[in-house]
Amino acid sequence: MTKPLVDVSRDFPILNRTINGHRLVWLDSAATSQKPTAVLKAVERYYEESNANVLRSVHTLASEATEEFNAARAKVAGFIGANRPEEVIFTRGTTEGLNLVARGFGDQVVHGGDEIVLSPMEHHSNLIPWQQLARRQGATLRYIQLAPDGTISLEALEQAITPKTRIVALSRISNVLGTINPIREAADLVHRHGGYLIVDGAQSVPHEPTRVEELGADFLAFSGHKMCAPTGIGALWGKHALLDQMEPVIFGGEMISYVDREEATWAEIPAKFEGGTPNIAGAIGLGAAVDYLNQVGMEAIFEHSRSLGEKAFQVLQGIDGVSVYGPASPHAGAVAFNIDGIHPHDVAQVFDAQGVAIRAGHHCAQPLMQWLGVGSTARASFYLYNGDEDIERLKEAILETKRYFRR
Amino acid sequence: MTKPLVDVSRDFPILNRTINGHRLVWLDSAATSQKPTAVLKAVERYYEESNANVLRSVHTLASEATEEFNAARAKVAGFIGANRPEEVIFTRGTTEGLNLVARGFGDQVVHGGDEIVLSPMEHHSNLIPWQQLARRQGATLRYIQLAPDGTISLEALEQAITPKTRIVALSRISNVLGTINPIREAADLVHRHGGYLIVDGAQSVPHEPTRVEELGADFLAFSGHKMCAPTGIGALWGKHALLDQMEPVIFGGEMISYVDREEATWAEIPAKFEGGTPNIAGAIGLGAAVDYLNQVGMEAIFEHSRSLGEKAFQVLQGIDGVSVYGPASPHAGAVAFNIDGIHPHDVAQVFDAQGVAIRAGHHCAQPLMQWLGVGSTARASFYLYNGDEDIERLKEAILETKRYFRR
Repeated sequence: MTKPLVDVSRDFPILNRTINGHRLVWLDSAATSQKPTAVLKAVERYYEESNANVLRSVHTLASEATEEFNAARAKVAGFIGANRPEEVIFTRGTTEGLNLVARGFGDQVVHGGDEIVLSPMEHHSNLIPWQQLARRQGATLRYIQLAPDGTISLEALEQAITPKTRIVALSRISNVLGTINPIREAADLVHRHGGYLIVDGAQSVPHEPTRVEELGADFLAFSGHKMCAPTGIGALWGKHALLDQMEPVIFGGEMISYVDREEATWAEIPAKFEGGTPNIAGAIGLGAAVDYLNQVGMEAIFEHSRSLGEKAFQVLQGIDGVSVYGPASPHAGAVAFNIDGIHPHDVAQVFDAQGVAIRAGHHCAQPLMQWLGVGSTARASFYLYNGDEDIERLKEAILETKRYFRR
Repeated sequence: MTKPLVDVSRDFPILNRTINGHRLVWLDSAATSQKPTAVLKAVERYYEESNANVLRSVHTLASEATEEFNAARAKVAGFIGANRPEEVIFTRGTTEGLNLVARGFGDQVVHGGDEIVLSPMEHHSNLIPWQQLARRQGATLRYIQLAPDGTISLEALEQAITPKTRIVALSRISNVLGTINPIREAADLVHRHGGYLIVDGAQSVPHEPTRVEELGADFLAFSGHKMCAPTGIGALWGKHALLDQMEPVIFGGEMISYVDREEATWAEIPAKFEGGTPNIAGAIGLGAAVDYLNQVGMEAIFEHSRSLGEKAFQVLQGIDGVSVYGPASPHAGAVAFNIDGIHPHDVAQVFDAQGVAIRAGHHCAQPLMQWLGVGSTARASFYLYNGDEDIERLKEAILETKRYFRR
């Protein structure tokens, strides 16, 4: 019996809501997680006591705000095992982080004839920036071949990553298939050829303990809003030397050292990449989210997300007329499925009538839909506030949907 | 006698704070404004009741979140007199907005030999993106000549804007001098030559009624956090046809129409420019800030900011050994000054000891500092929660600073 890892009604008041007469079951955490009261309170406290712009002024509120902002960066760095806080760049989220790398670093290291290696399961945010980079530089995209269950084998990696590979861009956990990709192995391969590994951690950093060095990544991007933090904040981690080398992308504000009418020089990292007033309250909220997740324990969260993902996979697979995608195990966080003859959007609507929130669509992964041979899927995703009871509700919702459409 | 325009202790609890035994006087709104309770409550309500990712799912919370997010866009559009809500792109703030235009639009219309016209009073965020554009395209920067009091005359505009001008990038209100620049006149001139006017509205949109059509701008960028909204949210407005033409800059998430392994096509505006999960709560907070400012009345706010700016100018000018910059009138929002022989950072520290929060530094406007012939200045800035009493405290703080340093 898997229970939620936290006191849900105390920490997540939104989950006390009733939707269409049913207790809300939130199975859309892969799109965005709910936020614990501790995070909301941290943001509120900042605005009510210390709101000021950071890094700019010497007055008391500015000192307090700057101290909290810097502390948040250190917390995020600690959470992913970064060596130094300045290796953490605050962004709006994963998408912005990956775009920063593609433009600020990719244009430096990828040239005509080079190859960029992707997987067909990448979220558009870890795909289109590389398509655009390839187009700008005259490089070629290569795709790792997926096994029939959507996993990536070492052989497939070896086939795709060659001496021509300058960049491998790979998600650690798929937002559709729930697969856990062999990042360490990809890192070793691409590094042997002198290339770089960029990891989309949007679905992994919220769900598994992350140690950037063990992972072997050169850059790691993730979003706060999928890990209990406010919307509008995320982080890009990069190796110190690579961030030093990388060009800034957003110009203005506090990212400069010296400016005259004709030219400008840049500040040190992380400021170099954070032009303009940052999302200060968001960063502080992300710091509070890290505190909250650490308190629960990331090992426990990973076991929980995996346990729920694999149970849901089993349950769905046992229902007549339901197709489930991805491997049975390991399967973390998100489970994509279809019910024969019923459009996923209709599935999601009948689910909503029963208070169960899932997502239906292409999940920003159209090439994966093409690979699966479907236009879209339904997706249930889990987090620390879910438990077996929610899987039971998921199962009931499917049976009800089948009855409703007489399938 | 000018009183605060709002019930300060009710709406802005942070201003009830005591700093070093004195009531906090917040004279740093040009860096960031304080946030009214109504805005914080709107954000809190969103997280506690409707938090969901937008534009993606069909369940109840996603519908509610999407509806609130779209309503926020419509409010912002109404606030600046935009014709259609989709002309408003949500950004992190002014800096990101100006960078989007420089890269997505500037690279399309500026080519080798063309000229980009700026003023020497521009914030780095409205300067470096254009330096970089000029460098990428082989274009030339031209600077409008300032009158001795820091204002821009029609003659100076006419001298700088020529048939070679493709872009004029100008702030409406200077963040240092408090000047109000002749945007309409600049628009007419640059349009006559077939060029485009980009307006930095960071200091003007919070302080004056804005009607984009009357202003004559082609693009207008501004920040939420300087107009009572949360950090991490802002907006870029552009003319519909120009936004249609402009290239996206951040790739991924919901900004696409169709994606396969090799290429992608874009969604319509505004989605085209909003790759990745947006700052949903921030946008809703910005909508609430617009409601709050509208309730107070933007005409009243402008009169208030101008009245306080001009009074402060007079008061400071009347103190022996104090230099004040910019014109006596019109002078809106921010007043920059120096005290003979005392470094602005020391000024700000002695001010802080008296509970008065001002900013000291180059205000992200180093070329303007070079023009003024100073390394930095102190700056007091005003908003709707300030009144004459705060100017009195500002004056006392200067006198105390002079005593402290025996000047």
